[in-house]
Amino acid sequence: MNLEEGKAVIKPLLSEKRYRHSVNVSREAVRLAKKYGADPQKAETAGILHDCMKDLPADKQLKSMEQFGIILTDVEKAGKKLWHAILGAAYIEKVLGVTDLEVLTAVRYHTTGRAGMSLLEKVIFVADFTSADRDYPGVDRMRKKADADLDAAILEGTAFTIGELLDGGWAVHPDTVNLYNETVLKLAEKK
Amino acid sequence: MNLEEGKAVIKPLLSEKRYRHSVNVSREAVRLAKKYGADPQKAETAGILHDCMKDLPADKQLKSMEQFGIILTDVEKAGKKLWHAILGAAYIEKVLGVTDLEVLTAVRYHTTGRAGMSLLEKVIFVADFTSADRDYPGVDRMRKKADADLDAAILEGTAFTIGELLDGGWAVHPDTVNLYNETVLKLAEKK
Repeated sequence: MNLEEGKAVIKPLLSEKRYRHSVNVSREAVRLAKKYGADPQKAETAGILHDCMKDLPADKQLKSMEQFGIILTDVEKAGKKLWHAILGAAYIEKVLGVTDLEVLTAVRYHTTGRAGMSLLEKVIFVADFTSADRDYPGVDRMRKKADADLDAAILEGTAFTIGELLDGGWAVHPDTVNLYNETVLKLAEKK
Repeated sequence: MNLEEGKAVIKPLLSEKRYRHSVNVSREAVRLAKKYGADPQKAETAGILHDCMKDLPADKQLKSMEQFGIILTDVEKAGKKLWHAILGAAYIEKVLGVTDLEVLTAVRYHTTGRAGMSLLEKVIFVADFTSADRDYPGVDRMRKKADADLDAAILEGTAFTIGELLDGGWAVHPDTVNLYNETVLKLAEKK
């Protein structure tokens, strides 16, 4: 699926703001892919599609996941913001016919991350933090890290995500903690 | 093992400050055990023994764990502050002859916690945050929670611990996250 096809797919599914975010993530993912040696074409596709299910109402997301036979853990059931990534990967595989496993897992894990991510998964995970439309406090610092060391950016991103969840009293997906821990230990070895 | 026997065991192993902390945790654990229906005698024993290995130099802790055949995960290897609980449980079982599984697991999980903790494990975990010698910012709030709802105190304690680890750039033990998540979901159900 090329960029124009991806845009045509997501345009009717997303708000204008989310559509622009998706285009920006795709662009940033291509940039990071070229920088770090991932496949730019796959980065473009995963980037444009990563949030395709995010504007679907929560009850419809849940219903669709049931129809796809997806079984959620208790943490996932309680974490609505995780659903669009899980559903999104199933949707692009089963409805859009995307077969590339790297693209599928990049969409699947773009919110939680996981230990043992492929380079493409890392690129999409980070691009979602550093796309041109992002303006949260600390985004400049995050962009610098993304340009210096993908793992340093992942450490920053996972710590940020876990911290936000703690502040809100929300459950923290174990996949995110496993990625955070893996990255802490990897960066400690690099020193 | 009664309190006097426990004191005699830990006295030569710990600094004066840590010895007093252990006596305070034991006292607080008895108070919480009576309040919430755990066994006060077991709480007293687990409380007095919980930190018995904490003042042993790190290299000796590691050596002792090897001798006990303990295999650490990567997160545990990197987290020296976790060692005394893992080693402590083995020490009180294999050297002191403590056979009560509730006491052993209360010592084993007093630092990380874990999902599915027994009432006694919860009591020791919380008493370690609320003992009379504790004076960290927020201890009054923690004591109020401990008196109102053990799970609310555990939520506060695990979130505090995970937050401190994130701030320091340290790995976070999955057991702590599992306890935090379990507690978030349990308290959401109570509402």
